[in-house]
Amino acid sequence: MSFCPFTSRRGFLTAAGALAGALGTGCMARAETRADQPASGAPALDAVEPFWGVHQAGILTPQQAHCYFAAFDLVTEKVGEVESLLRTWTNAAAQLASGNPVVDLGRNPYSATPAVDSGEAQGLGAARLTLTFGFGPGLFVKDGKDRYGLAAQRPAALVDLPRFNGDQLVPEHTGGDLCIQACADDPQVAFHALRQLARQADGLAQMRWLQTGFSSSGAMGETPRNLLGFKDGTQNPVAPAPNGRKGPSRPGLSPDEVIWVGAEGPDWMRGGSYLVARRIRISLEHWDRSDVDFQEQIIGRRKASGAPLGAEGEFDPPDFDMADKDGNPVIPDTAHLRLGAAANNGGAQILRRSYSYNDGLTFIAERWPPWRQGMLYDAGLFFMAYQRDPRTGFIKIFDKMSKLDALNQFTTHIGGGIFACPGGAVEGGFIGQGLFRRA
Amino acid sequence: MSFCPFTSRRGFLTAAGALAGALGTGCMARAETRADQPASGAPALDAVEPFWGVHQAGILTPQQAHCYFAAFDLVTEKVGEVESLLRTWTNAAAQLASGNPVVDLGRNPYSATPAVDSGEAQGLGAARLTLTFGFGPGLFVKDGKDRYGLAAQRPAALVDLPRFNGDQLVPEHTGGDLCIQACADDPQVAFHALRQLARQADGLAQMRWLQTGFSSSGAMGETPRNLLGFKDGTQNPVAPAPNGRKGPSRPGLSPDEVIWVGAEGPDWMRGGSYLVARRIRISLEHWDRSDVDFQEQIIGRRKASGAPLGAEGEFDPPDFDMADKDGNPVIPDTAHLRLGAAANNGGAQILRRSYSYNDGLTFIAERWPPWRQGMLYDAGLFFMAYQRDPRTGFIKIFDKMSKLDALNQFTTHIGGGIFACPGGAVEGGFIGQGLFRRA
Repeated sequence: MSFCPFTSRRGFLTAAGALAGALGTGCMARAETRADQPASGAPALDAVEPFWGVHQAGILTPQQAHCYFAAFDLVTEKVGEVESLLRTWTNAAAQLASGNPVVDLGRNPYSATPAVDSGEAQGLGAARLTLTFGFGPGLFVKDGKDRYGLAAQRPAALVDLPRFNGDQLVPEHTGGDLCIQACADDPQVAFHALRQLARQADGLAQMRWLQTGFSSSGAMGETPRNLLGFKDGTQNPVAPAPNGRKGPSRPGLSPDEVIWVGAEGPDWMRGGSYLVARRIRISLEHWDRSDVDFQEQIIGRRKASGAPLGAEGEFDPPDFDMADKDGNPVIPDTAHLRLGAAANNGGAQILRRSYSYNDGLTFIAERWPPWRQGMLYDAGLFFMAYQRDPRTGFIKIFDKMSKLDALNQFTTHIGGGIFACPGGAVEGGFIGQGLFRRA
Repeated sequence: MSFCPFTSRRGFLTAAGALAGALGTGCMARAETRADQPASGAPALDAVEPFWGVHQAGILTPQQAHCYFAAFDLVTEKVGEVESLLRTWTNAAAQLASGNPVVDLGRNPYSATPAVDSGEAQGLGAARLTLTFGFGPGLFVKDGKDRYGLAAQRPAALVDLPRFNGDQLVPEHTGGDLCIQACADDPQVAFHALRQLARQADGLAQMRWLQTGFSSSGAMGETPRNLLGFKDGTQNPVAPAPNGRKGPSRPGLSPDEVIWVGAEGPDWMRGGSYLVARRIRISLEHWDRSDVDFQEQIIGRRKASGAPLGAEGEFDPPDFDMADKDGNPVIPDTAHLRLGAAANNGGAQILRRSYSYNDGLTFIAERWPPWRQGMLYDAGLFFMAYQRDPRTGFIKIFDKMSKLDALNQFTTHIGGGIFACPGGAVEGGFIGQGLFRRA
């Protein structure tokens, strides 16, 4: 049986679109019956993000509601197989992003029948799926070995992340030679895509870790809140702000300044960006026992409005020089906002694209009274930041924060990685092609 | 500081509703710009499910897109504190389900300030949140002890689940004295609600395990697909079918026959239902290496359409007597569909309300060639079934399936529990009140 058992998802979507059109004049009636329709069934789920382009999608793309992030260890020893995998992944990603199943995955070593799409996304639409690929240090040098003859191509900016103060990284959530960030407005669409790509890597690359995340923003397109209950991403430097939300009142920077690699190269990274990911567990139980005014001193913002302390609106510029009547800084010296602000880091900027995560419970020994040991939330923030150069971006900012940020008493970095995400591909090419052309 | 820092979520929602009304005449224009709006920001997220009523919400409620399920161990030794916790939980659940924050959680042993809502759901709407409470066997008898003087009230139907063939249940995902099922169309709303309730239990009940899940259905309200890629829930006995989806062609049964406890009692369970939950890991890697026609023989249905083998439409009744030209049954003897069907279980019926789950990777030793050991998906189905009596429902059906179902080669039951979910509460009362009134 060599045919694909699925009708095209696109065909389904065309029909759905026609229906939406027919319903156009009955909009209010439809709104009244919406309670019977799950949000996941909302017609917005047929929206498509373009895959081909100068930059990879999923970086400056307005942030989707769900994320699956996977890191892989390469197990092949042949550079040609790495190149071939990236070509296969690129083609499959383009199919998936347009809302189509992967008709022929090409690899099924256990059967004479070609492997086909696993099918669970049929009928769900593209849901703004983006697939973003990155290369870890291990693609270039692993355990001191240049496995693929690519060591000379390693960008200077793709450093090994230093050990930061307080790091408690565990191997099963850290590192990786390749990464895929799959984001969509539906979790099943995002995982489905990642699953097809992982299948295509069978025998070439083994998934090392996998992280799920969600980001819920309000009906008005407000800045989403993280599990601390605070708005997260207000300070993002690029305008227009992701998510179509209320932008900063000050003019934004150009993505070319902050996010995209320019002439500094290497050539194959031009138009690309560097991703730093950190799996940050938050001690929610401990946080929830603290008073809101104490939380606001730690963050440096009001919890409800997101306004910097001493200001009125979320996007008002923070006044780091403002003092209260006793001469103490209104935004404390150890506030998260102060320590992370570009103004206090020589202008260093990153594009935050983080997701909350919740992986149930895990065994934790508390660092605070009553020093309980037991099952506590394994939940927090899967922090992702894109930048033109991590040495002058995340590393510069976080080196100081890891030592001084008052929030550190509630957070523990337990995983993550650094990845070079090349520029986008034109149709017929593949992500990272420039790297292999030179090799 | 004793005031709540949050404006009412309801106030926010009223404004959002007015805006939606104003946009009514511009429906098509809005549809065209939908790509900029995440699905999580769709206005449907302000929909409210009623909390008070004869039955608890979250059982027959059309299935929401996200679920958080938590089981708790009671640590208090006083029955009055259990009763008080249930009253507190009921009141908080009613607030949360209507889209409001919990203004005063009443317990903050670490501060003179009352604990307030943790805030991350502000601006998100009620998202059809339901909170469903259940009592495990441990509320009545634990380690042979009648801790609360409630042993005589234990319903005969609340049996300890037998050990089924193939069970590999682990304590950290199994059991519990109390449970809360939190379902909503937004994951942050669901977790937020559970988090507030867990805080109120501080010192009285300790969360034992926590499971997240998702269920994605298509834009047309079709039966959702599980991670096997097959539609899941087609056989549900009750009409109208959950999710407002295409119903079965045959007449459905009444919920009173299948789901709700009637005169057989005990009185405090009248209008309630019994929940059996099972955390079922699916070996997705192995499943994905099998051919689709083989998968269809295992399930007994077509993958794309959901039609029973030998039939055309998803809701066509399966013909278990049909044979092929060689005399073999078209729906194999070991097919999942055949073994689970009411017709082959003396009419036994359950209401499936399952969610897919994906908790990343975990260390697994494969049971099949090439017998790999390593990091594989910790993903599958968080199966939940509601029924009037588990002895004639899940236990009867699954006893046979656990021995014969061809799907078992791909699935492992690794956790779960059984819970008596009392009837609903009227305003001023609380869930389970009848149990304590008699004690």
